[in-house]
Amino acid sequence: MRVMGVDPGLTRCGLSIVEGGLGRKVTAIDVDVVRTPADMDLAQRLLQVADAAEHWMDTHKPGAVAIERVFAQHNVRTAMGTAQAGGVIALAAARRGIPVMFHTPSEVKAAVTGNGTADKAQVTAMVTRILGLQVAPKPADAADALALAICHCWRAPLLERMAKAEARAAEAQRKYAERLAEQRKAVQR
Amino acid sequence: MRVMGVDPGLTRCGLSIVEGGLGRKVTAIDVDVVRTPADMDLAQRLLQVADAAEHWMDTHKPGAVAIERVFAQHNVRTAMGTAQAGGVIALAAARRGIPVMFHTPSEVKAAVTGNGTADKAQVTAMVTRILGLQVAPKPADAADALALAICHCWRAPLLERMAKAEARAAEAQRKYAERLAEQRKAVQR
Repeated sequence: MRVMGVDPGLTRCGLSIVEGGLGRKVTAIDVDVVRTPADMDLAQRLLQVADAAEHWMDTHKPGAVAIERVFAQHNVRTAMGTAQAGGVIALAAARRGIPVMFHTPSEVKAAVTGNGTADKAQVTAMVTRILGLQVAPKPADAADALALAICHCWRAPLLERMAKAEARAAEAQRKYAERLAEQRKAVQR
Repeated sequence: MRVMGVDPGLTRCGLSIVEGGLGRKVTAIDVDVVRTPADMDLAQRLLQVADAAEHWMDTHKPGAVAIERVFAQHNVRTAMGTAQAGGVIALAAARRGIPVMFHTPSEVKAAVTGNGTADKAQVTAMVTRILGLQVAPKPADAADALALAICHCWRAPLLERMAKAEARAAEAQRKYAERLAEQRKAVQR
């Protein structure tokens, strides 16, 4: 499975492509950071981010896009820009029929380092080791984009199995309710 | 000037088209609310909102798009969805070369009612009166979308004049600094 990882942002937006293999084997295909100037018009900044992400999707043809889920940050204005950048990339994926999944920062940290509160240096160190890179990816947004794609490669099969199990449980529950209703009717006759 | 007003949102997204004339004359051309189900995939919801907004842009060919600027709300999750919906609409406008402007809720309320802290009922009542509508627009998102477009029709000429005046002032300042530098050089010679 080829996964595109996105650490969304307007000032710096991390993009990565990671190929997931058997078990926990993952390989980095590409990583980059898109930047847009802070004094640029918001709509133009979103256009530049979307154009870059769409170029990546059309070039690398990922089977899934993993985007960091944004929460409230200290700076509300930044959080809004981050949400908007993630939004236009999710839209680009939806237009291409590519499934989009959002992972929270702590899910990503936990997947990659085993610790949901790991700091940036720990995440970068583990990403470098997991992917067997010669040099640590820089800046932090590049490492985060790789961490997101790795997290998705590892979590997606689990989440899929969980969704299937839940669907099976719901089906069993539905059948049980049906049988119960039938028996009640039989008793009343 | 034909303005498209947008009250962004995922659950309900208000869209309007208002034609601005001479002075404060404004006419409503169209208004509607796009809804997407809360249990739908986020990327799919953004796709539906973007598709509807793009259809409006291509049908009504507005000369400007006015979007409500989102601030932190009580519900952070809702605020993020609102920001993302506004983001994909701003992107659609940028793709078509249509200028995008963001107005804060209090700027809109002040423009339409004369009071930046007016409530929803006051905004709806004034929008109905200003546009000379037979019935009040419902739900509130529709009235808000109209209010945004009216606000833009009235503020845009002022903002443009202000930007020109600022540019003139900056130019005068630059020339003055140049002359000063020349005179200093002349004295030193």
